[in-house]
This record gives sequence, structure tokens and C-alpha cells, in this order.
Amino acid sequence: MRNIKLTIEYDGTHFKGWQIQAQNQRTVQGDISKALKKILKEKVSLTGSGRTDSGVHALAQVANFKTSSRIAISELQKALNANLKDDVSIIAIEEVSEEFHAQYSAKSKTYQYTISNQKIRPAQRRHFCFWYPYKLSLQKMREEAKAFLGRHDFKSFQATDPAKRGQKRDTVRTIKKLTISKKNDIIIIEIEANGFLYKMVRNIVGTLIEVGNEQLPKSSIKMILSQKNRTAAGITAKAHGLMLKSVAY
Amino acid sequence: MRNIKLTIEYDGTHFKGWQIQAQNQRTVQGDISKALKKILKEKVSLTGSGRTDSGVHALAQVANFKTSSRIAISELQKALNANLKDDVSIIAIEEVSEEFHAQYSAKSKTYQYTISNQKIRPAQRRHFCFWYPYKLSLQKMREEAKAFLGRHDFKSFQATDPAKRGQKRDTVRTIKKLTISKKNDIIIIEIEANGFLYKMVRNIVGTLIEVGNEQLPKSSIKMILSQKNRTAAGITAKAHGLMLKSVAY
Repeated sequence: MRNIKLTIEYDGTHFKGWQIQAQNQRTVQGDISKALKKILKEKVSLTGSGRTDSGVHALAQVANFKTSSRIAISELQKALNANLKDDVSIIAIEEVSEEFHAQYSAKSKTYQYTISNQKIRPAQRRHFCFWYPYKLSLQKMREEAKAFLGRHDFKSFQATDPAKRGQKRDTVRTIKKLTISKKNDIIIIEIEANGFLYKMVRNIVGTLIEVGNEQLPKSSIKMILSQKNRTAAGITAKAHGLMLKSVAY
Repeated sequence: MRNIKLTIEYDGTHFKGWQIQAQNQRTVQGDISKALKKILKEKVSLTGSGRTDSGVHALAQVANFKTSSRIAISELQKALNANLKDDVSIIAIEEVSEEFHAQYSAKSKTYQYTISNQKIRPAQRRHFCFWYPYKLSLQKMREEAKAFLGRHDFKSFQATDPAKRGQKRDTVRTIKKLTISKKNDIIIIEIEANGFLYKMVRNIVGTLIEVGNEQLPKSSIKMILSQKNRTAAGITAKAHGLMLKSVAY
């Protein structure tokens, strides 16, 4: 069996997330699986690097599947893009070793969260940023964000809806990088970690916003991490500001 | 009567252009006029700096209207944004002298046209750029584009559909600036002129693409301008790559 790796860009606005749903809802995994079945005339199992929620975007999501088809890789990419709607693109394709697994082989993932920090609602970028019109102290956010760096138990930043998704028992993760940049009124928070818990980026961003607007005092993040309790942390930032930027293997 | 100037950002994707249509189609002028009527309890006549076509965007379209209402300017802006859908925003508002006319007072307008010059369809930016996956020589485009600068008869670049819009008799315009920049795979053509004929930017861009892909030889633009005939010029570039960037008064 050949093992094929896909790199995928999508606009998550009109998707109910990455993962195939029980109901007949549009998902990225569902759309690509359907296109693969049509092209390869066989049912394949498509594994993503991880799920993205409804409304979350990806510049370079990674997925893999195994096939006995002998189709040329470049032909398959063309056929996939021809069979996919215009809000999802296969931006790269390659044949990889049999052991490659989009989720388990991942060494780290990078997400970026975009905040539009302007007074007026951004009409053109509305699906790709969270509009927050109030004052944010970037200096305070950057200072506090240092507490996230390194290996920590992120239990306080894991979503608590076990009905929808199984909670991870092992909630220790390592954040390798966290940067907060600003250009004009756009603030981008970029986070690289060896892995993320469910809604972890959005909970980190929500908490950083509460640091920036001075709802949370100095040293809050250190304290929240130590509490290992979701209610200790801030709000969950909205999905549409979130983008899966890259997955490293 | 007070004269109010609005600066408007919109995502043109779901609009049938700026101008109110005979049929019940969604337009930017229509949406703002409806909101004004609701807020001011009077029917106002909203004048734009010019029309934009279906699918064309604006970072800063300008319009004005006269009213006898005494509502505070900042309250009106808030009320307008609250009554408009999220793909259009009033980004600035001011009271201006009675003589100000959004169209006739304009000294120049700047449009930008965005080309995505990458092999794979851009999923996220699809509504804000024209995807052109073939080779383009920027050097040739820049060299030829110089012929557009200055005062010329742009008859060859005026759309020939008089059924839809009246042709301008005076087809002489002055292009003050034309730049072609590239960052990664995004090419931006920015054009400032004292005024534009119907579809002039899109016809200029279509012609520049034909220069860049070497369909048109050297000195073509000079020759096309001298012919004063629309059939001499290149194709009309698609609407969704076009953005009204600013209007100067």
C-alpha cells in the first residue's frame, strides 16, 4: 500500500470543522474523503494531524491515507482540486514512508490567532479575525505570556465538555514558542507546541485578552496553570480567529 | 441642511455592486440608504464617489447625503453600523461643507487589483484576488505600464456595453501613479487617476496580464491607446480581484 501525505489549505467558514460528523454536515475530512473515493474508486481512511473546530481555518493542515491505486501523485492532486469546492485546496502532495501518520508522527504544531483591535467592525476580514474593539496592553500580554513557555500541565486550558469530546488524561504539553505581534490594528498570537488539548489555543488567547484588558492581575497565568482547573482560566476566544498554520514532522 | 460624509469598507462578494438596482437585489447603496431611512426617519439621497461592480470590494468608498436631522455624528455612525450587516462598515463619518459632493469633489481615486500568481487555487483569499497560475513577467509588465502614466485618451479601455451604462464622451483621463508590486505569490497593481471610465481598471489589468504572459509584444500599450478602440486592448480582469482603496478630495 502506498502512503500519501496531503497538505491542505481551507477557509473554515462554511465547514462544520475538520472531522466527519454523524449528521450530514459539511466537513473538510468528509469533502476530501468523498473526492478520494470518486477518483480512486476505493474507500480510503483519511487521518488528519488533528481536528479543527467549526469556523477554524488552516493554511497547512496535514493528512494521510493509504491506497493501492497507482495513480501519479501530481495527477491525484489535480483531480482532487478539480473535485473539491473552492474553499479547500490541496496545496502539496507527496508519497511518504509507510510509517508516516499525520497525527502520531507530528513533532509540533503552530497555530495563529488573529485579533482585530480596531474600533470599527472589520467588514472584509470578518471571517478571519476576532474583532475586539477595546484597549489591550500588549506589554502586559507579552510579559504574562512568558509563563506559558515550556513544559506545563495545561489542564486549566482544556475544554470541559466531555460529552462532545473525550478529555485527555495526560494534560502535560510543551509550548516551544509564543509570540504576540502587532501590525496596524491586527494582533497575531502565534503558538507552537508539541501538541494541544481541546480548545487550548482559544482558552490561552481568551486568558491573554483578559490580561491585556487588565481583568487579570500580574502573575495570573502562573497561578491559573497551578490550579489545574478550567474555571480558573479566562474565556474561550471565538473560533473564526483561529488558524492552523503548520504541522512539523 | 447638514451634509454628512461617510467612509465605507465593504466585502463586495455578496453585493450586486454599489448602485441601487431596479430589481430587489442587494447593493451597498441600497443597504446604507435603508439603514439611514430607519435611523433618520426621512428618505435621504446617498451619493457615492462612483459605482463599483458586483463582486468589487472597497477599503474606503466615500459617499455623502444631506439631512435635516440633528443626530450627533458619532451616534449616527454607531446606529448605522448596528443596522448594517457585517460585510459593510462605516469606518469614518464627518460633517462637511454644503458644497462637498462625493463624486464631483473627488480629485483622484486609487484602485488596487490583486493577482494570486501561484500554481494552486487560493482557498482563503479566493474572493479577494484573481487566481492566475501561469508565468507572468513583472519586468515586462512594469516596462509597458509606463505608457499608461499621464494624460491619455483611454477610449480603448472603456467597456463597450452601452445598454448597461452610458458611455462617457470625454474619455481623456490622467493616471497619476501605477505601481506593480509582488510579495510571495501576490501581485498588486495599484492605479491612481483623476477618474476612471467604466471597467477601465479591469481592462488595464487584463491587458497588463497579456503583456506579462507575452501574448502582447513590446510597445503594445502605446499602440492600443492610440487606436481608441476597445477591441484593441486585452481581456477584462475579473471583478473579485478589484478593490477601491481610497478617494482623495
